[in-house]
Amino acid sequence: MPTIDGIIETALYVADLTRAARFYQGLFGFRTLLSDDRLHALSVADRHVLLLFARGGSTRPNPAPTGGLIPPHDGSGQIHIGFAIAADELEQWAERLREHHVTIESQIKGPRGGTSLYFRDPDGHLVELLTPGIWTIY
Amino acid sequence: MPTIDGIIETALYVADLTRAARFYQGLFGFRTLLSDDRLHALSVADRHVLLLFARGGSTRPNPAPTGGLIPPHDGSGQIHIGFAIAADELEQWAERLREHHVTIESQIKGPRGGTSLYFRDPDGHLVELLTPGIWTIY
Repeated sequence: MPTIDGIIETALYVADLTRAARFYQGLFGFRTLLSDDRLHALSVADRHVLLLFARGGSTRPNPAPTGGLIPPHDGSGQIHIGFAIAADELEQWAERLREHHVTIESQIKGPRGGTSLYFRDPDGHLVELLTPGIWTIY
Repeated sequence: MPTIDGIIETALYVADLTRAARFYQGLFGFRTLLSDDRLHALSVADRHVLLLFARGGSTRPNPAPTGGLIPPHDGSGQIHIGFAIAADELEQWAERLREHHVTIESQIKGPRGGTSLYFRDPDGHLVELLTPGIWTIY
């Protein structure tokens, strides 16, 4: 059977696109790939695309630049997303969160020695930074 | 500054955990990493974790196995997720979707030659399969 090579696009739906983009750019240094009234796409480690969608802005089919339609989608709530970090940069991340006035809501040690830091983005989405040793695959 | 190595965890919130897990396992062959009443975690290419959460099942803090609390989160709607595929497996994927009685809702050619196939999971989440040439980073 054919194979899936990975998750490329992960989406968050946000109340204020500019505010959300500033948060992820400012805290993580993610580079903008695309930005319009509906969507702000950020490069994560040049391997993934974090898609910030304006909540309610994609409930109708949207024309693709080269023709065809992108089907509708939308989301609400405070969803979860997890980013990989190196174990030896955990303290630097904790310090960087403090500098950006982001409160660590919880810190957990995984069964295989990894650490998870949990905090909120401006929309209340639950962001996790994970060092290796949380999952068997990471 | 410290770096983010990628997106490890991407979450979907679903009405029926068993139905959703069967869909992603059956269609894509994703391996189960963890399964309980609240959560079904699947390995994607042994590089990412697709977290299927029972909708409404994580609205209170959840004890982590080794102590501490995982903060609450939840989501609704039909959100978007995109998986990477090889260009030379596009036809095999279209065939596989047909075999699994999954209707392709839209097919789009990107400006740099990539192709996107869009379809729905059992909860109506908008799933995309992308070949290289959609984003500058992929």
